[in-house]
Amino acid sequence: MQFEIYQNSLECKARLGRLTLSHGVVETPVFMPVGTRASVKTLTPEEVKDIGAKIILANTYHLYLRPGDELIARLGGLHTFMNWDLPILTDSGGFQVFSLGKLRQITEEGVAFQSHIDGSKHFFSPENSIAIQQNLGSDIIMAFDECVAYPKEKEYVAQSVQRTYRWLLRCKKAWTNRERQNLFGIIQGGVYPALREQSAKLTVECDLPGYAIGGLSVGEPLDLLLKNLDHTEQFIPKDKPRYLMGVGSPDIILNAIEMGIDMFDCVLPTRMARNGTAMTQNGQITIRNATYKEDTSPLDPKCSCPTCQNYTRAYLRHLFNVGEILGPRLVSYHNLHFLAEMIFRTREAIKQERFVQFKNNFLNNYYGQNREED
Amino acid sequence: MQFEIYQNSLECKARLGRLTLSHGVVETPVFMPVGTRASVKTLTPEEVKDIGAKIILANTYHLYLRPGDELIARLGGLHTFMNWDLPILTDSGGFQVFSLGKLRQITEEGVAFQSHIDGSKHFFSPENSIAIQQNLGSDIIMAFDECVAYPKEKEYVAQSVQRTYRWLLRCKKAWTNRERQNLFGIIQGGVYPALREQSAKLTVECDLPGYAIGGLSVGEPLDLLLKNLDHTEQFIPKDKPRYLMGVGSPDIILNAIEMGIDMFDCVLPTRMARNGTAMTQNGQITIRNATYKEDTSPLDPKCSCPTCQNYTRAYLRHLFNVGEILGPRLVSYHNLHFLAEMIFRTREAIKQERFVQFKNNFLNNYYGQNREED
Repeated sequence: MQFEIYQNSLECKARLGRLTLSHGVVETPVFMPVGTRASVKTLTPEEVKDIGAKIILANTYHLYLRPGDELIARLGGLHTFMNWDLPILTDSGGFQVFSLGKLRQITEEGVAFQSHIDGSKHFFSPENSIAIQQNLGSDIIMAFDECVAYPKEKEYVAQSVQRTYRWLLRCKKAWTNRERQNLFGIIQGGVYPALREQSAKLTVECDLPGYAIGGLSVGEPLDLLLKNLDHTEQFIPKDKPRYLMGVGSPDIILNAIEMGIDMFDCVLPTRMARNGTAMTQNGQITIRNATYKEDTSPLDPKCSCPTCQNYTRAYLRHLFNVGEILGPRLVSYHNLHFLAEMIFRTREAIKQERFVQFKNNFLNNYYGQNREED
Repeated sequence: MQFEIYQNSLECKARLGRLTLSHGVVETPVFMPVGTRASVKTLTPEEVKDIGAKIILANTYHLYLRPGDELIARLGGLHTFMNWDLPILTDSGGFQVFSLGKLRQITEEGVAFQSHIDGSKHFFSPENSIAIQQNLGSDIIMAFDECVAYPKEKEYVAQSVQRTYRWLLRCKKAWTNRERQNLFGIIQGGVYPALREQSAKLTVECDLPGYAIGGLSVGEPLDLLLKNLDHTEQFIPKDKPRYLMGVGSPDIILNAIEMGIDMFDCVLPTRMARNGTAMTQNGQITIRNATYKEDTSPLDPKCSCPTCQNYTRAYLRHLFNVGEILGPRLVSYHNLHFLAEMIFRTREAIKQERFVQFKNNFLNNYYGQNREED
């Protein structure tokens, strides 16, 4: 893996970079659509490419359970399996198993958990998380960490930071396919700046290809998120990619880019789409609303995506109202296109040293007024 | 509407024709994909075009209830509403309301029924079925008929044939938009050849642009279906299009083409697809089966559709197993492509006077052996 930063903003900490991975080059900042179970929901890989995505994320926990990482390995790896030949990042499975609540038990060795599908018993450790990700063959693999919930008392978070560090050392040891796969460490520490600093320093000590900031956007207020993010960033080497995990809302993405973050992923655009909410330059639209019953305009008049070129709000509302799959499909395409376009324009703005103004305008349009009329 | 038959098979009653409608030309024999609620399930109109469909069917009952035919009329008609600029055929709503069972009551005036969605009360008559279809703006509109269930005693069917005829006279009177819309009458008569003959003669008496054969493929054995179909066909003028309603299985389609039928529609290919059954040249495949777990071949090795070009059975099986929408979507595309390809090859075979051999080969491959291994 190569990571080259070819421009640092003069206005802020934003930067333009280029990540070269086994399966292709990724311009940063970048938003990675999520293909949880080897499918970006409702869309074909070809469409995800048409949208402009150069890297997607897939989930270790889900693929381990079904169809199984060993089966995927036998079939040639995840790229071949799902017919996506550009880079893939896989998470470690940690976030998902920690989300299982009562179905999991944490020990120093790892996490015992029961499948959410059939209750069958499984065990994730730093070693087998890395082994599973090696079977999947993703370009970027994530360390197996503990993502603590919010709120959580400082004492627990402090212990967890130490455990995540010990697990990272084990991940690094288990990480053998270094030519084709790149291990990113994950910085935790909850909403405690001192613990964030400690976690960042321990993680960076491991000298890895990239660093992620985890455990944010898990329910804490926006100001706490941004404060801890900004505080953490200074401890990550400037020449390494920084990845803020699980964030997909325009305000956090743009603020994080301003703080020097390079990579993002989130199910938000596709999950919102399936619920009938479209992202537009003038804010979010709930397409089921009666307001749109006879609205012959596109979701977003300024958008060039096929959904906006071909279909009216009235038709999309109808599709959602009667439960036609085409509705979620068309809005999923649009929402991913919307974020891809936002990131593309972000990179242009950084290039032209007008990012801060771009960000303010964009967020004013998106959040400044609620254009939804009903 | 123009209908030109440019070739009659020397081997059988099959023929090649060309139907010219307001929105385009349709080569016959033709299979019409069904877009019940203004959407061919899971697919975009662009994809349905790419598959080669030149005409689709939409359902009056469903569109009347949601979003409402008057709304569709205000938005410019069904073509504009769903962004499909090729011909559309709408049914009369009769079949759906008769399927409601206890929720409907038939009188001479029409059918009172309750919505399957919210129980609200509605009334369909020959007059308002035609008015609704005029609001939808379809190229071919269907007469409001009574489709009797199978089995049904002869006496009832005989009365029903008469009522369907009286309703047809009322439909014809209500049909005013004759420049742009073409009314097809529907021949009923159950599985009673004498009643089929009577219904055909009464229907043909009305001198309409085209004729449909209804009330078949409603549960009767295949031999009764084909016998009644063959018997009916002789009473329909040779220069008019003949449409066998609700049929989508290769055996009935090809046998019906041999008997001189020109048009078909059915939800079968898309409904089967959503259940995970793919049509292939060697028969049907149930993609969820464990057999396909590590099968890296396409659904149908001889198929040129994007599903077969890009995805393996193993991946499709995974998509169905985990419930990803992309699965039904990819198999829907494939199944419609399969039928379109079958019909295309049928027309070629008729042109080259080798239809009977083509039909026999095709059906032998499709039904001759069960290639599904588990």
